[in-house]
Amino acid sequence: MPLTQDQLAEIEAQRGQTTPTLRATAPGMENRLYTAHPVLDHGLIRVIDYMGDDAAICQAARVSYGTGTKSVSNDEGLIRYLMRHWHSTPFEMCEVKFHVKLPVFVARQWIRHRTANVNEYSARYSILDREFYIPAPDALAAQSTVNNQGRGELLEGEEAARVLDILKTDAARAYDNYEAMLSTEGQKGLARELARMNLPANIYTQWYWKTDLHNLFHFLRLRADVHAQYEIRVYAQVMCEIVADWVPLAYKAFADYRMGGVNLSATAMDCVRRMLKGETVTQENSGMSAGEWREFEGVLGSG
Amino acid sequence: MPLTQDQLAEIEAQRGQTTPTLRATAPGMENRLYTAHPVLDHGLIRVIDYMGDDAAICQAARVSYGTGTKSVSNDEGLIRYLMRHWHSTPFEMCEVKFHVKLPVFVARQWIRHRTANVNEYSARYSILDREFYIPAPDALAAQSTVNNQGRGELLEGEEAARVLDILKTDAARAYDNYEAMLSTEGQKGLARELARMNLPANIYTQWYWKTDLHNLFHFLRLRADVHAQYEIRVYAQVMCEIVADWVPLAYKAFADYRMGGVNLSATAMDCVRRMLKGETVTQENSGMSAGEWREFEGVLGSG
Amino acid sequence: MPLTQDQLAEIEAQRGQTTPTLRATAPGMENRLYTAHPVLDHGLIRVIDYMGDDAAICQAARVSYGTGTKSVSNDEGLIRYLMRHWHSTPFEMCEVKFHVKLPVFVARQWIRHRTANVNEYSARYSILDREFYIPAPDALAAQSTVNNQGRGELLEGEEAARVLDILKTDAARAYDNYEAMLSTEGQKGLARELARMNLPANIYTQWYWKTDLHNLFHFLRLRADVHAQYEIRVYAQVMCEIVADWVPLAYKAFADYRMGGVNLSATAMDCVRRMLKGETVTQENSGMSAGEWREFEGVLGSG
Amino acid sequence: MPLTQDQLAEIEAQRGQTTPTLRATAPGMENRLYTAHPVLDHGLIRVIDYMGDDAAICQAARVSYGTGTKSVSNDEGLIRYLMRHWHSTPFEMCEVKFHVKLPVFVARQWIRHRTANVNEYSARYSILDREFYIPAPDALAAQSTVNNQGRGELLEGEEAARVLDILKTDAARAYDNYEAMLSTEGQKGLARELARMNLPANIYTQWYWKTDLHNLFHFLRLRADVHAQYEIRVYAQVMCEIVADWVPLAYKAFADYRMGGVNLSATAMDCVRRMLKGETVTQENSGMSAGEWREFEGVLGSG
Repeated sequence: MPLTQDQLAEIEAQRGQTTPTLRATAPGMENRLYTAHPVLDHGLIRVIDYMGDDAAICQAARVSYGTGTKSVSNDEGLIRYLMRHWHSTPFEMCEVKFHVKLPVFVARQWIRHRTANVNEYSARYSILDREFYIPAPDALAAQSTVNNQGRGELLEGEEAARVLDILKTDAARAYDNYEAMLSTEGQKGLARELARMNLPANIYTQWYWKTDLHNLFHFLRLRADVHAQYEIRVYAQVMCEIVADWVPLAYKAFADYRMGGVNLSATAMDCVRRMLKGETVTQENSGMSAGEWREFEGVLGSG
Repeated sequence: MPLTQDQLAEIEAQRGQTTPTLRATAPGMENRLYTAHPVLDHGLIRVIDYMGDDAAICQAARVSYGTGTKSVSNDEGLIRYLMRHWHSTPFEMCEVKFHVKLPVFVARQWIRHRTANVNEYSARYSILDREFYIPAPDALAAQSTVNNQGRGELLEGEEAARVLDILKTDAARAYDNYEAMLSTEGQKGLARELARMNLPANIYTQWYWKTDLHNLFHFLRLRADVHAQYEIRVYAQVMCEIVADWVPLAYKAFADYRMGGVNLSATAMDCVRRMLKGETVTQENSGMSAGEWREFEGVLGSG
Repeated sequence: MPLTQDQLAEIEAQRGQTTPTLRATAPGMENRLYTAHPVLDHGLIRVIDYMGDDAAICQAARVSYGTGTKSVSNDEGLIRYLMRHWHSTPFEMCEVKFHVKLPVFVARQWIRHRTANVNEYSARYSILDREFYIPAPDALAAQSTVNNQGRGELLEGEEAARVLDILKTDAARAYDNYEAMLSTEGQKGLARELARMNLPANIYTQWYWKTDLHNLFHFLRLRADVHAQYEIRVYAQVMCEIVADWVPLAYKAFADYRMGGVNLSATAMDCVRRMLKGETVTQENSGMSAGEWREFEGVLGSG
Repeated sequence: MPLTQDQLAEIEAQRGQTTPTLRATAPGMENRLYTAHPVLDHGLIRVIDYMGDDAAICQAARVSYGTGTKSVSNDEGLIRYLMRHWHSTPFEMCEVKFHVKLPVFVARQWIRHRTANVNEYSARYSILDREFYIPAPDALAAQSTVNNQGRGELLEGEEAARVLDILKTDAARAYDNYEAMLSTEGQKGLARELARMNLPANIYTQWYWKTDLHNLFHFLRLRADVHAQYEIRVYAQVMCEIVADWVPLAYKAFADYRMGGVNLSATAMDCVRRMLKGETVTQENSGMSAGEWREFEGVLGSG
């Protein structure tokens, strides 16, 4: 994450200057503001702004005139209740804005979350930097043989070296040719909106991304999950740490009910009840398919 | 707008205490925060929180590391450009949260704007206050004879008195009966979620309502417009004043391009071009229907 | 649900005339089209149009050139997989449009689901009919003493009679006065957009409501649930029956994973694992609050 | 657009079989269904399904029991009125679903329109085809010297040849290496979700994309506009032709009020009024910046 001296100076300047405000302020988030949290080899996440704190969730749930806080233990109980019973609107009353630098193939997954506001750096208007994601050795995995959209063992030795060489060489050549096509030395120079088509999906882009806490939790549940692709999961994990500092009570409820929580189907729940009564339940008498049964055993920790 | 002593004290407390923040701060909005701006006879609008300022719009448009401000005149030019060319995403990077008290029939129009977050006071859970909107004499208008969804002349004398008497008497009786049904004195007491069905549409409700600046502008363009119903327009007008203090450059561009701006159809634009060449254009040779022509004349100020 | 002769004739006409189409057609839904399904005392639900069927969900999931159907058993497995793993986008590829007549206080709950398209009958523009929801005896319940937003025992005898009398009398008088204010006999007549404020929340309104299958499932999970208010739940239940005819495989997966499914927190899941190992788990050693433990016992069927 | 024999057979099969339906049917759209409309060198647009027609817009606007059609001329007047006065909800009552094959850099612009449903072919799960967009000679343009996000003159001769050679060669090599990394011959084979990062932005992807008519019009206004990038504009233009066949009255109103319509700011409208009174208005006394004045002259056709 090679920030330039100018960029570091801009961040420094932003962190150096406080203003008094009447608004709700979250100390844990003030500590995070503007700082570049590194992700992957050249990526970053920065908090640019936020609105609200744990108390703001309660204040909205109560539609109150004041701050909505009665006591921390009251607030914690209310927040857990809201989370448990899927009352999502009070969580929508907190908002956060991030500056994110990320590879294009990650951006393409990310953007599928539609309830958010986005301003992306425009490669129609500007020239992209020469920065590409090249996986670290412990991220260079083979195709899974059991899961069509997953990874298996790590690549090793010669194969790993060959792959890294391809990724680096192709990226370098694509960028060299991008520059060559754009160049106006002795030629007209191709339009930026066309030249960019030569760039591979591991080039870095960046955007401002703003969303509310409810939709952020939905994003994090899917993208910090073990089934998410590693390259987006690391972004989600950094965001989890940031959110834990911002709204500690809400994050704790989220971790318990959503991230760590489990959905059991009517059929699966029926099996649990039978097992608790001492019955021996197997896939054959469970009513589940082989795949569902395997997932069920995983959840019970009995697989 | 009879706030109780407790409510006033809560507002006072909120306004009394500043905290240092690293976030973008809008001085014009800090002045507005928490204060109850009265609307209609018992309604109010309060700003509860906000995110961003004029510079934040530019910062997002530039996807910049720093504050995004180059100079005020640069920022103003960029904001006008963005507004003129319908680049809406940078305006989405500002967010605002209001506490609003409003009659139910106004709330029903308001909620049709879907891109917003809402927490409404629940009449399933709580008991509503005895507060009803009764129009002031200058809002007591007859049905328009030319516009099915508009108002004509003011009602006067006996008819006005009769209408006010009906509205007051029916509201009072409905509320008395609401209380009588809820009462647990010598009876079980009807469920709140049922008893509320007896209350008329001029009873006041309240909610927290949060939206981004782009969607707020869309709301204001439709609801501060002269064709909007008076009872929602007065809320929109107060919000216009608040937004003008919050993001003065963006509001000015909005006022010029949206509120004061005009949409001309291809047909109408063609008429303008012909008129500028000296041709006499009438409804007959305009290609417009009588209704469209009337609106066109209104826009030209030649009607 | 007293449809007029004209309305019945219009429905009859719509049901009488088929056209050949190349589109995916769901036989179970063709049987439902246009017919008025009665709900409450004067309400109704009618299917006006639909897009897609079970195969369309698979077709979209596979981004296929053809119909996407391989075999019914393949499709069922895929649909269950998509539902289990929260792959919501293929379900968004089906769409349905309803005509609904419903009391205003039900409409106010319903509209909180924002991802839908709505056209409501306008009381600014038109005059509402004299139709009010009056609860049947088995829906006339007292306020719950344990749940602030729920119902307890039924009202009986004199109290029930008194409540019904209030609801009927107040509705009748409110409507009489609505008409009196609107009347242009010997007076100007109040604007419709003002007169409507006198009408209570049990008056019927109607709208066209269109949404996709994913968002409809979300609506049904919340509104067909036992905790939903009875007056909206009966609408949701009728829609469940309709959806079961339209997309039988998707509905079955929804019933198993969502309607009948259960969310267990990390803490609760840990308790289940401990119980399956033979440990005696009580509220005290569960890590749950009293309220959560009660809900947990309810889920296990051991409460 | 080299469809395989299997794909053509599947399309043929879909077009060969009609079913009777009670739903509203648009003859112009039935003619379009399933057929692959070619776009660019390997792209396509196919209509997969639709809901509603011109009459359905009126039916929703009237919240009617029957079909909503009174007469074609009545319907046309109503549709024009709705479009002119920004009554968008009736247009949301029509829905359409497309199958689109498009280069990734076009897909990235397209997806910014959030109010739509999307299922994209997954390169995590599947292997992409070897198909790349290579511009035709008349699309190979230089960077504009006056507009940062636009094109200028065409490239010619040697420069054009060099660019085409780069694009073809780099695409071929990137794809060869993609296959080499995926290969399991004598090696483990890189995970698909990683290998895809080597592919450039001109590779083709495909998706199912579903939206309502109001949001489609918004998309078309921005993307069929002369300022849109050529490579997305050609998709928008094909969709315009399809929509004109589907809902001819709505499309005509859209073409007049939106596509061909003009937004004038309060300042610009004031200048028009002054000019119509015979005053000589120049940039200096117009109140507009140089850029705005140039655009204004363009609109008046006097530039």
